[in-house]
Amino acid sequence: MKTKSVSFGAIEVGATSFHVWAGPCVIEDESQFLKSAQFVRSQGGTALRAGIFKLRTSAESFQGLREESQPIIKKVRSETDLLMISEITDPRQIEFLDSLVDIYQVGTRNMFNYELLKELGKSVKPILLKRAFSARIAEWLKAADYIVQGGNENIILCERGIRTFETKTRNTLDLNAVAFLKQESPFPVFVDPSHGTGLSQLVPALSQSAVCAGADGLLIETHPNPSQALCDSQQALSFSEFEGLMAKLKKLTPLYGKSL
Amino acid sequence: MKTKSVSFGAIEVGATSFHVWAGPCVIEDESQFLKSAQFVRSQGGTALRAGIFKLRTSAESFQGLREESQPIIKKVRSETDLLMISEITDPRQIEFLDSLVDIYQVGTRNMFNYELLKELGKSVKPILLKRAFSARIAEWLKAADYIVQGGNENIILCERGIRTFETKTRNTLDLNAVAFLKQESPFPVFVDPSHGTGLSQLVPALSQSAVCAGADGLLIETHPNPSQALCDSQQALSFSEFEGLMAKLKKLTPLYGKSL
Amino acid sequence: MKTKSVSFGAIEVGATSFHVWAGPCVIEDESQFLKSAQFVRSQGGTALRAGIFKLRTSAESFQGLREESQPIIKKVRSETDLLMISEITDPRQIEFLDSLVDIYQVGTRNMFNYELLKELGKSVKPILLKRAFSARIAEWLKAADYIVQGGNENIILCERGIRTFETKTRNTLDLNAVAFLKQESPFPVFVDPSHGTGLSQLVPALSQSAVCAGADGLLIETHPNPSQALCDSQQALSFSEFEGLMAKLKKLTPLYGKSL
Amino acid sequence: MKTKSVSFGAIEVGATSFHVWAGPCVIEDESQFLKSAQFVRSQGGTALRAGIFKLRTSAESFQGLREESQPIIKKVRSETDLLMISEITDPRQIEFLDSLVDIYQVGTRNMFNYELLKELGKSVKPILLKRAFSARIAEWLKAADYIVQGGNENIILCERGIRTFETKTRNTLDLNAVAFLKQESPFPVFVDPSHGTGLSQLVPALSQSAVCAGADGLLIETHPNPSQALCDSQQALSFSEFEGLMAKLKKLTPLYGKSL
Repeated sequence: MKTKSVSFGAIEVGATSFHVWAGPCVIEDESQFLKSAQFVRSQGGTALRAGIFKLRTSAESFQGLREESQPIIKKVRSETDLLMISEITDPRQIEFLDSLVDIYQVGTRNMFNYELLKELGKSVKPILLKRAFSARIAEWLKAADYIVQGGNENIILCERGIRTFETKTRNTLDLNAVAFLKQESPFPVFVDPSHGTGLSQLVPALSQSAVCAGADGLLIETHPNPSQALCDSQQALSFSEFEGLMAKLKKLTPLYGKSL
Repeated sequence: MKTKSVSFGAIEVGATSFHVWAGPCVIEDESQFLKSAQFVRSQGGTALRAGIFKLRTSAESFQGLREESQPIIKKVRSETDLLMISEITDPRQIEFLDSLVDIYQVGTRNMFNYELLKELGKSVKPILLKRAFSARIAEWLKAADYIVQGGNENIILCERGIRTFETKTRNTLDLNAVAFLKQESPFPVFVDPSHGTGLSQLVPALSQSAVCAGADGLLIETHPNPSQALCDSQQALSFSEFEGLMAKLKKLTPLYGKSL
Repeated sequence: MKTKSVSFGAIEVGATSFHVWAGPCVIEDESQFLKSAQFVRSQGGTALRAGIFKLRTSAESFQGLREESQPIIKKVRSETDLLMISEITDPRQIEFLDSLVDIYQVGTRNMFNYELLKELGKSVKPILLKRAFSARIAEWLKAADYIVQGGNENIILCERGIRTFETKTRNTLDLNAVAFLKQESPFPVFVDPSHGTGLSQLVPALSQSAVCAGADGLLIETHPNPSQALCDSQQALSFSEFEGLMAKLKKLTPLYGKSL
Repeated sequence: MKTKSVSFGAIEVGATSFHVWAGPCVIEDESQFLKSAQFVRSQGGTALRAGIFKLRTSAESFQGLREESQPIIKKVRSETDLLMISEITDPRQIEFLDSLVDIYQVGTRNMFNYELLKELGKSVKPILLKRAFSARIAEWLKAADYIVQGGNENIILCERGIRTFETKTRNTLDLNAVAFLKQESPFPVFVDPSHGTGLSQLVPALSQSAVCAGADGLLIETHPNPSQALCDSQQALSFSEFEGLMAKLKKLTPLYGKSL
């Protein structure tokens, strides 16, 4: 099945451009976020991970700056003109997020949150719909259908690893699913190798594997100082690791009819 | 660890009474719901499954009567004085549900919906927190903690089956988890063998197994006419099957220091 | 489907007797094995776990006394006249085992070892066929068919837990499968709650749950001194824990038409 | 960790050559096997899949030509001088196989068959050790250790997909494991995308993904007439599909320091 590309801002996802959307797990402060933005932009990234509301397994973990992120995002946006991608975790956040965010991300814990999906179906913004770590492909496509039924067809699927019995890696990245969806669904497909592996040292290899599987883009965690990151420190690339990866992607993507 | 019982209305969960909460998957119309209520009450059930908002894998499936359930619930309540347990699928529903519902159920797809859990932490009503079909026990307990942190300690855990590679049954009911939680957590534990097996013919056996594993109660689907049910028809007990099960539970529960 | 009972020695499995087969994970020395045998016999156990060849994940772990078990088994047998159940891990062991063993156990790692199953199809001894921890029920029944095709219909299935994402327990005991098999297959079904949970403190509860699910018997690890056991020390019951369990089973089994 | 290459015949695995070992699931007759051999050789394959003994889920399925394969293999060998890789399913087969086979394959169902692994530890031939579809990486490495302890260090690991809840694909190919093992183990790593996906249309994409993940070679099913194959017909590549894949691999492997 031919991929139906999704266009917004100055970009088109699912056509001949390969996209890398990157940035930290969560906005920590202005300095960390601005540094990340400038770096991602310098590397050719076309959108910035702007973590505002975070879903954390433990109530004691840092839940994001939340409403306090607003001035930071506004400033970084005006200085870098990067598109912002951010996770929405509650339908009541739309009013607040709508002026700050260019792409709504539905995280792995919310793929089955159909009330949220229905709400996003009313939006005109593109939705990056991550796979629940427990979702079968068929259920994932039915979740996308909830958004389509609401009137919004600007959907990008994002494989981010599924839960299996393996314990050496945080999740098992399912690239079978990527190749399958590129043949059987009309949606562009991204891959998140940061969550898909949980280990920064595996991210470069799996990012490249994702290209061959047919991915239209990558969602990658990078941080100015990974060991100090307030979340997901084990899986974030340092800036130099990220540069190394981009150099490899530049050689690889043309073999697959994509340019970076 | 000793179970801390949860008391509300005239009942106490987690002490010496064994509770069976039953009813249809979803309210279909007044006649179906009233018949179910009268039957459940006649059998000694202490709360009624009142399905108002349903999360269905497919957007095309029946999503519940939603706001139109209100008059039906009011009528059935006044005629049977059963406690009502109903799933909440969006924090915005609380205002509507609060006058209709005695126990909030968090369904398997929402155990990781921490914004919803935070909202329920502000309620004083008991919360039946189902395990996500993909949740480790440790994550389930951390989800409960989100409610506790909000100020609500009236939590009942409900094991309802996990997703595994087995395909003959809809889920794999994890009674190990029930025995484990009764030893290691302070919360009362229910078991839902209807979703836990997905096959009505297995429900009686697994209901009894749940008692031995330490369960404080059961959540069971029963319908006046299972083959015509608008959802979960394969797993609902007919009224006569339900009666047979109750007879067995009456003999079994005293061996475990519980009365029905 | 009606269970076809399996008769051998003085016992019948799958009829009105409920059987407990117990003993240590592995034969360590004469004293440990004799003590275990006398204890199991005094408790009404009808067969003894006689671990001769052990499959261990690590090549460095104790692999059983192997051929050196012979005099120990002979002595214990003559003193207690218990039936011996022992795992066979290689078709070449049959010659050695045939005079020592009354019931061949196919362990979880060998359920897919079809060459071994074909060999056991030629035996007249009963085969306790454990489920591979990764096997679907349908595959388990097809494995049993390999034995039947060889001419041996004396098969007892044994559920011993499947591998899932849960990490608090060693395996997830699948009692759905037990209830399912009692309805859909002709074979008697045992449950091994020791491996099924991996934690001795959960064994009594799950043993009783197994009875309600329809089990015809239990395979249980017990050891004179669990903390010193050479394998599976976390899951073996002490003798006093075992006694406590037997007392409970004596009350429970009559409710299910079985006597202990 | 640096990969320790495995050398035998005229080839070296784990160094700068990328190897494709291909052929049918099972030897069906001389014509099918000879055609496959000539084709694989013409494409640059360095070993031929020679299925002699097959483990099939059902006792009724074709179990391989077994001893009758001997003259066919001898003939094909003399005409093509390809190395033969064949699965061993019983330690008693070694005597028969030793003169026919250059590489022993331990299949997914036998990775936990430690008695077989011990026997192979005494061989000097290279062992392709497939991952059990239920094995954690740590267990897989411990299985390899059984062979090493016996004295044979010529081990090649082969990722072939693990069992998960996904049902659209036969298995979930775990390329995380490949990247992990290339960093953390000394063994060369192959990937079997035929079993890893179960769908021939996904094999080319995942084969290429495997290269980026670090694989040293591929094990691929190809058949002169896939729809007529006696086993695994859904996952075998036709000869023209195989040619297309080889052309792509020729462009891709040099980016990863490998030549085909």
